[in-house]
Amino acid sequence: MTDTNRDALAPRITARLDALASISAEDGAITRVYLSPEQARASALVAGWMREAGMAARIDAVGNVVGRVEGPVPGGPALVIGSHLDTVRDAGRFDGPLGVVAGIACVEALMREGAALPFAIEVVGFADEEGTRFASTLIGSRAFAGSLTTDILTRTDPDGITVAEALRAAGFDPARIGEAARPAGSILGYLELHIEQGPALERADLPVGLVTAISGATRLALTLTGEAGHAGTVAMDARRDALAGAAACILAVEARCRPEPGLVGTVGTLTAAPGAGNVIPGRVRFSLDLRAPDDRQRRAALADLDIAFAEIAAARGLSLDRVVTHEAGSAPCDPALMAHLAEGIAAEGYPALRLPSGAGHDGMAIAPIAPIAMLFVRCRGGISHNPAEFASQADIEAGARVLLATLRRLAAA
Amino acid sequence: MTDTNRDALAPRITARLDALASISAEDGAITRVYLSPEQARASALVAGWMREAGMAARIDAVGNVVGRVEGPVPGGPALVIGSHLDTVRDAGRFDGPLGVVAGIACVEALMREGAALPFAIEVVGFADEEGTRFASTLIGSRAFAGSLTTDILTRTDPDGITVAEALRAAGFDPARIGEAARPAGSILGYLELHIEQGPALERADLPVGLVTAISGATRLALTLTGEAGHAGTVAMDARRDALAGAAACILAVEARCRPEPGLVGTVGTLTAAPGAGNVIPGRVRFSLDLRAPDDRQRRAALADLDIAFAEIAAARGLSLDRVVTHEAGSAPCDPALMAHLAEGIAAEGYPALRLPSGAGHDGMAIAPIAPIAMLFVRCRGGISHNPAEFASQADIEAGARVLLATLRRLAAA
Repeated sequence: MTDTNRDALAPRITARLDALASISAEDGAITRVYLSPEQARASALVAGWMREAGMAARIDAVGNVVGRVEGPVPGGPALVIGSHLDTVRDAGRFDGPLGVVAGIACVEALMREGAALPFAIEVVGFADEEGTRFASTLIGSRAFAGSLTTDILTRTDPDGITVAEALRAAGFDPARIGEAARPAGSILGYLELHIEQGPALERADLPVGLVTAISGATRLALTLTGEAGHAGTVAMDARRDALAGAAACILAVEARCRPEPGLVGTVGTLTAAPGAGNVIPGRVRFSLDLRAPDDRQRRAALADLDIAFAEIAAARGLSLDRVVTHEAGSAPCDPALMAHLAEGIAAEGYPALRLPSGAGHDGMAIAPIAPIAMLFVRCRGGISHNPAEFASQADIEAGARVLLATLRRLAAA
Repeated sequence: MTDTNRDALAPRITARLDALASISAEDGAITRVYLSPEQARASALVAGWMREAGMAARIDAVGNVVGRVEGPVPGGPALVIGSHLDTVRDAGRFDGPLGVVAGIACVEALMREGAALPFAIEVVGFADEEGTRFASTLIGSRAFAGSLTTDILTRTDPDGITVAEALRAAGFDPARIGEAARPAGSILGYLELHIEQGPALERADLPVGLVTAISGATRLALTLTGEAGHAGTVAMDARRDALAGAAACILAVEARCRPEPGLVGTVGTLTAAPGAGNVIPGRVRFSLDLRAPDDRQRRAALADLDIAFAEIAAARGLSLDRVVTHEAGSAPCDPALMAHLAEGIAAEGYPALRLPSGAGHDGMAIAPIAPIAMLFVRCRGGISHNPAEFASQADIEAGARVLLATLRRLAAA
């Protein structure tokens, strides 16, 4: 074994990802939802790896796995490296676990080097980011950040089991989940390594990228109502075709978002009624998902689109109904932490491509209580939430090395 | 009773429409499908009215009701006035029956006047135009025109009953339905009075309109395939959004058809997959229904749209699949018969608004064997195939008087 091999981080990381991938509710697929037996097994495994790395490890009151190496002052504020251990159904093996096991590998390397840390370091494997079971995302990180509200306890899974019941069944006390919240001032900052889940790094031919913000999002449900009619007997200029109106709205979304980097708008669902080939659609319902790293940018786009939709509806004699179904502000990354990550990227010899995260991450929950920053690792084809999700050993190595270099710099700063 | 009232045609016509409307497979709705007990009752009732009007009446080998007044030569060629007695499910009371009972009323008036006819006149109530039961339209008029092919006998209804079985159950002999075909030269011409089923006459504030042609139609099933992706992580310029592509196609249809009178294009169905608000649609299937009174006009529009769709797909990195699911040529109305109808319209004091029929009618089946012409009667809101279908007494009176005036002129010509 050469020195180079001895120092490589990726082999152990990928071996651990493989081990986690084998812990699933389904044979031949990866499914690990909040408060499931699979999650308990995965958490125990991760806690063991944390201890091997020289950390104290515990499962907190909502099921997050928390590993910790103390700094000079026991119990003092910590730099947190985190991501999540839960998955969507039929998931890939990288989304979430990669950030946790890469964090453990970096702490392990620092320990081996005998680095003197000026602060504590924690690695956290959050128990619920995807929201697969209870249709409520970020339960783990919101509990950690103290922003989880008590109404979560009565939320049910598809079998009608409440979060409170599921907590009890998994050995937790629903009355005590508030204890997972970290005291003010106990978190110095939050770093997360995650696969990109998009194609930007692949297009730029780079293994890693520096996240500028986790985009805010607005989701709308829109309904255009015109008049159904016979496809043969109503002249084009006598129509109030709701689908043609929706088509104009879809192209307006595209035209408004395309010129602005970071801004994305998607119409993902559309249903046309009555839905017969020989009938002009009288009513169309469609969704709009609008995201931007900058909340003002998103609000400006939404305001422009509201005007565009209203003009389209008026010009076509359609009525427009619009309901906001979801709204979340952006979580900008901290400039100082970003600068440290950028130095880590440079130390490994890469340019620091800056890009927003259009997908949500645990950092959204942490941002209100601590500065956050994120490092993206390239994934093949931008594919995620899918068994085909893939990040190469070389890219994982690059990502872990950047994280390690950043930690060394933070420790030395 | 004044002379004016004695001459009015509409009261008897609407009373007969009411009587037919009460013959239905469903209480509180009008549903009368081919070879049903309801149809047999309706046919017997109509045959009785024909006899009251002085006509010989019979049910032919496929179930059409045929009334006839002989001309100077018994068995000689006949002018046919027709429409259909079958309905869609939950139908209105005018679509079809109006043309049959108006025809009977006109013959009755001619008989009362003691008009000497230079040719025979027949009134036909076709047994199947809508195709409600066997998903095959115009069975009655195709049989009458001799163009019904034998494969019709094995076609099944939703209960698995074949046309042959249904014919037997209704007292017909499947082996003899060819006898419904009229010998070459036995039909001088075909006139049909029908509600417009569109809004053109209402917009023009006219009770009647002169049909130029029954439009031909092409129906396509199209599929655009791009790439599904995360609504947050794939930049706008990296997308292959099948729904945005379909939106561009829908607007291309509208833009191509709008400037040309008579040409109509409709996208009536659209499904976007995978169909989640946070996923870029990777595949969209949609229909196109293209109609025009002139086949060259329709073919030219289709050729232009094929080019437009291919350009849209290419520019967006989408693949396009296109299947023709239906194609029917137009049935132009006969200029000489149209001129007689136009004179009839003028005689009643109306301008002759010329308009194509975008909907199909029995005349499509008759056109290959005889000159055809059609008179449209205004219907409220253009609504048809719906219980709200409505034509006013005044408009029915106007339509019937135009038909009667036309018959008088034809008889005198």
